[in-house]
Amino acid sequence: MAKITLGDIAAHLGGELTGNPLLTIDRVGPLDSATPHTISFLSNPRYAAQLASTQAGCVIVGPALRDAAVARGAALVLPDPYLAFARLTQWWAAQHRPPATPGVHPTACVDPSARLAASASIGPFVVIEADAVIGEGAQIGAHGFVGRGSTIGPHTRFAPRVTFNHGCHIGARGILHPGVVIGGDGFGFAPNQGRWEKIEQLGGVRIGDDVEIGSNTCVDRGALDDTVLEEGVKLDNLIQIAHNVKIGAFTAMAGCSGVAGSTVIGKHCMIAGDVMFVGHIQVADHVQVTGSTTVTRSITKPGVYSGLFPMDDNASWEKNAAILRNLHTLRDRVRALEKKK
Amino acid sequence: MAKITLGDIAAHLGGELTGNPLLTIDRVGPLDSATPHTISFLSNPRYAAQLASTQAGCVIVGPALRDAAVARGAALVLPDPYLAFARLTQWWAAQHRPPATPGVHPTACVDPSARLAASASIGPFVVIEADAVIGEGAQIGAHGFVGRGSTIGPHTRFAPRVTFNHGCHIGARGILHPGVVIGGDGFGFAPNQGRWEKIEQLGGVRIGDDVEIGSNTCVDRGALDDTVLEEGVKLDNLIQIAHNVKIGAFTAMAGCSGVAGSTVIGKHCMIAGDVMFVGHIQVADHVQVTGSTTVTRSITKPGVYSGLFPMDDNASWEKNAAILRNLHTLRDRVRALEKKK
Amino acid sequence: MAKITLGDIAAHLGGELTGNPLLTIDRVGPLDSATPHTISFLSNPRYAAQLASTQAGCVIVGPALRDAAVARGAALVLPDPYLAFARLTQWWAAQHRPPATPGVHPTACVDPSARLAASASIGPFVVIEADAVIGEGAQIGAHGFVGRGSTIGPHTRFAPRVTFNHGCHIGARGILHPGVVIGGDGFGFAPNQGRWEKIEQLGGVRIGDDVEIGSNTCVDRGALDDTVLEEGVKLDNLIQIAHNVKIGAFTAMAGCSGVAGSTVIGKHCMIAGDVMFVGHIQVADHVQVTGSTTVTRSITKPGVYSGLFPMDDNASWEKNAAILRNLHTLRDRVRALEKKK
Repeated sequence: MAKITLGDIAAHLGGELTGNPLLTIDRVGPLDSATPHTISFLSNPRYAAQLASTQAGCVIVGPALRDAAVARGAALVLPDPYLAFARLTQWWAAQHRPPATPGVHPTACVDPSARLAASASIGPFVVIEADAVIGEGAQIGAHGFVGRGSTIGPHTRFAPRVTFNHGCHIGARGILHPGVVIGGDGFGFAPNQGRWEKIEQLGGVRIGDDVEIGSNTCVDRGALDDTVLEEGVKLDNLIQIAHNVKIGAFTAMAGCSGVAGSTVIGKHCMIAGDVMFVGHIQVADHVQVTGSTTVTRSITKPGVYSGLFPMDDNASWEKNAAILRNLHTLRDRVRALEKKK
Repeated sequence: MAKITLGDIAAHLGGELTGNPLLTIDRVGPLDSATPHTISFLSNPRYAAQLASTQAGCVIVGPALRDAAVARGAALVLPDPYLAFARLTQWWAAQHRPPATPGVHPTACVDPSARLAASASIGPFVVIEADAVIGEGAQIGAHGFVGRGSTIGPHTRFAPRVTFNHGCHIGARGILHPGVVIGGDGFGFAPNQGRWEKIEQLGGVRIGDDVEIGSNTCVDRGALDDTVLEEGVKLDNLIQIAHNVKIGAFTAMAGCSGVAGSTVIGKHCMIAGDVMFVGHIQVADHVQVTGSTTVTRSITKPGVYSGLFPMDDNASWEKNAAILRNLHTLRDRVRALEKKK
Repeated sequence: MAKITLGDIAAHLGGELTGNPLLTIDRVGPLDSATPHTISFLSNPRYAAQLASTQAGCVIVGPALRDAAVARGAALVLPDPYLAFARLTQWWAAQHRPPATPGVHPTACVDPSARLAASASIGPFVVIEADAVIGEGAQIGAHGFVGRGSTIGPHTRFAPRVTFNHGCHIGARGILHPGVVIGGDGFGFAPNQGRWEKIEQLGGVRIGDDVEIGSNTCVDRGALDDTVLEEGVKLDNLIQIAHNVKIGAFTAMAGCSGVAGSTVIGKHCMIAGDVMFVGHIQVADHVQVTGSTTVTRSITKPGVYSGLFPMDDNASWEKNAAILRNLHTLRDRVRALEKKK
C-alpha cells in the first residue's frame, strides 16, 4: 500500500493539524516507544508530562493540551482524543489488512440449501449446514462451523475456528474471535434416583448487532426460550454465559467472568474480570461490578459493587484468615465485654 | 415431520391426561410465554400461582397440583413432573433434529487401521488416527479429532470441534460439546537450575458411560496413571480437570470450576460454579460445594461447604476490607480490653 | 519397538544401577501401582515408607535413600531423582510415540508464499497463510491455523487445533496444546455516547523459546506494542493473558488464572491456579502467589502472597459471613468499649 502521511490521517479524522502534512507515518504507537514517524495520542491529562519526552512525529490531543502539544511538535487536536485514537486504529487496520476475498473457498463444505450472499467470504475447511443464511460482506474464517438454520448478519466477521451451532442468530457487524462456541447445550438435568436425566436444550441463542465476543468464550443455547445478547454487548475471552441469560445492550464484561442460568443483566453495565453471577437474579442498568466479585443477589440500583478478598503477604494473610474462620468467636467476645459494662 | 398432538405426548410420557388428545402442540415452553399450542410444566409448588395466568395448551403437573391444573385446562399428571419434562425434551428433540447420517463424510481423514462401526457417523474434516475405535451409533461432529488408539463408546456423540487425543477412552452415550479437549498434557515440570524440565504425560484419560462435558472444558491426561471421570459425571463449560484427578460417578460440576492435580472427588457430589479444588485432596461422596468456593483441604463428611466473600456496595466493601486487612489488630484490641477487666 | 531393559534406562539417565540390567521394563509408574516390570521413583523422603511395600522392578532414588532402596530390590541412584524421572518420561515418550512425518499433508491448505522447512510436519486440514514461516522440525497438528506473516520456531510443536493468528511469533521447542488461541484481539473500546467504539489491536504476540501453553489458553495480541511471553514460560490450561501483558522468563502459572491488560510479571515467578492479576501493575521476579488470590496492586519484593477466603461448612460460613458484612459495626463496638475505659 502507499505511504501514509500525517495529512492522510488528518483528512480521515478531522480536527486541527499543526505540523507538516507530508510527514510519513509508519506506525501508531504509545508515547514512550514512539519514533519520529509514529503517531501517538494523549487522552489522560495525568500523562501530560510524557509530552515533553516523546519522540512521536505527531500526538493526538484534546483542546486542553493543545498548547503543550504544539510546543513540542506536530499535533492533531480533536475534542475526544481517545475516540479519535480508536477511529485511527480502525482506519489503520483497514489500510494494512488484506481484504477478505468474496466467495467460497474450494475446500469449504456448504450445504446446497444454505443461502450465502455473493459478497460473503467463506474460508478453508468451513462447514455450513442446511438452511443457514450468511449475510452480505460476512466472513467465516477457516475451520468455522455454522449449524443448520442459523443466520449470520451482514458484515459480521468470524475469526478462524468459531463454532456457531444450529438455530442461533447474530446481527450485523459482529466479531467473534477464535474458539468461540455459540449454542452449546445449557447445563440442565433432572435428578432421577441418583442419576441425571438430560434436559435437551430446545432454545437457541439470539445476538444483536455490533456484538464482539472474545476467544474461547461460550454462550449456551436456552433450555426452552433463547439466550440473548442485545446489541453492542462486548464479551472478553473465556467467559461463560449459561442458558437463558439475557445481557442488555452495550454491557461490557471482561475476561474469565461467568453468568449462571436465567440471570438478566441490564444495559450499559461494566463488569470487570473474574466476576461471577449466580443464577436467576436481575441486575439493573448502569451497574458496575469490580473484579473477582461474585454477585449473589439481584441488584436493583445503579452503582458500583464489590466483593474481593484483599491480598496480603502470606504471613499476614494466614494470621487474618485464622481470625476470620472464628469471627463469630471474636464477635462473642465483644458481646461479653459489652455485657460486663 | 408430522404434527404432534397432546395424545402423542401422553402416549410417550404416560400419566393421566385430562383435555383434548387431538390438540396440536407446536412448542415446549415455560409457563409465562406459553401459547395455547404450548405444553409447559410446573414442578415447584411455589410457582403454582402461575397456573392461573398461563396460556399453555397443557401443563404437566404432579398429583398435588392436579386439581388446580385441571381447573384451568388440559393437564398431564405424572408422579415426577420435572423428570417427565426432561423426558419430553428428549423425545421432542428426537422428533425435530435430523438424525445423523451413518458413514464417513468424504472429506474426513480416517486412518485405515481405525475400526469404525458401520452405524457410526463421521462428519466433515474429521481426523481419526491409527487404531482408534468408534462404536455403534457414535457421532463425531465436524472438525473432530480422535487420536491414535483412542476408543469412543457406542452412541457417544461429539459435537463439532471436539479434540480427543491419543490413548483416551470414553464409554457409551457420552456427549461432548464444542471445544472440549480430552487428553491435553497435564502440567508437570521438574525444576532444574531455574529452568523447567518437562515431565512427559504418559497416562491417558478414562471416561465412563453417560458422561456429558460442556463447551471448551479440558480434561488433562495423567502423568503416569490415567485421569478418570466415572459414569454419569456431568461437567459444564470451561472447567479444568488436571492430571490424575478422579471424579466419582454421578457427580455434577457447574461452569468455570477447576480441579488441581491428583484430587479425588467422590460420587454424587454437587459442585456449583466457579469452585476450585486444590491438588492432592480427597472429597467424600455426597458433598455439596456452593459457588465461588475454593476447597483447600480434604472433606471427609457429606454436607454443604462454602467459602465466598460477600458482595456489597463498593463503599461498604472498602470499609470492611480495610478492617479485614487488619483483623489481627481488632482481635488484639479485644484482647487488651479483656485483660483490663 | 524393541523391549526396554533396565540397562537401557540406566544407559540413558546415568547414575548407579544396582540390580539386573536385563530386566524388562514395560511401564513408568507410581510406587503404589507398580508391578515387577515397572520403573518408579521416589524423590520426597516423606514417602520413604512406600519403598518397603512397592512391587516396582526398580526405583530411582537420591543418595540419601540409596541403602533403603537397595535393601528392597533394584535401584537407580541419581543426585536429583525428580529431574531424572522427568528425563525418563521424555525418553520413554520418544521411544513410544510415533515420530511426526515430515512434509505437508495432502489436505492441508498452504499459501505458496509461506516458507516451510523441509523437516516440518504439517497435519491434515491445517491452514497456513501468506508469508508464514515454519521452522525445521516444527509440527503443526491437525486443524491448526497459522496466520499471515507469523513465524513458528524450530522444533515447536502444535497439538491438533491450535489457532495462531497473523503477525505472531514463537521461538524454538515450544509446545501448544489443543484449543490454544494466540493473537485474538485484546479487549479495547473507547466509549462513545453510550456505545463502544472498537480499538483495533495493531500489535502482535511474541513468545520466546521453550514456552509451553495449555489447552484452551488464550494470549491476546497487543493494542499497539506486542504481548510478550519470555523464554521458558509455562502456562497451564484455560488461562487468559490480556493485551500488552509481559510475563518474564521461566515464570509458571497454573490453570484458570488470568492477567489483565498491560500488567508486567517478573521472571521465575510461581503462580498457583485461579490467580487473577488486575491490569497495569508490576510484579517483581521470584514472586509466588497462592491459589485463588487476586493480585490487586504491584508487588515489589519477592515473597509469597495470598488472598483466599477460607472454606468452611456452610453453617459456620453463614455465621461468619453475616458478621463480615458488618465488620465495621464490630470495629465500632470495640472502639466504644475502648472509649468507656
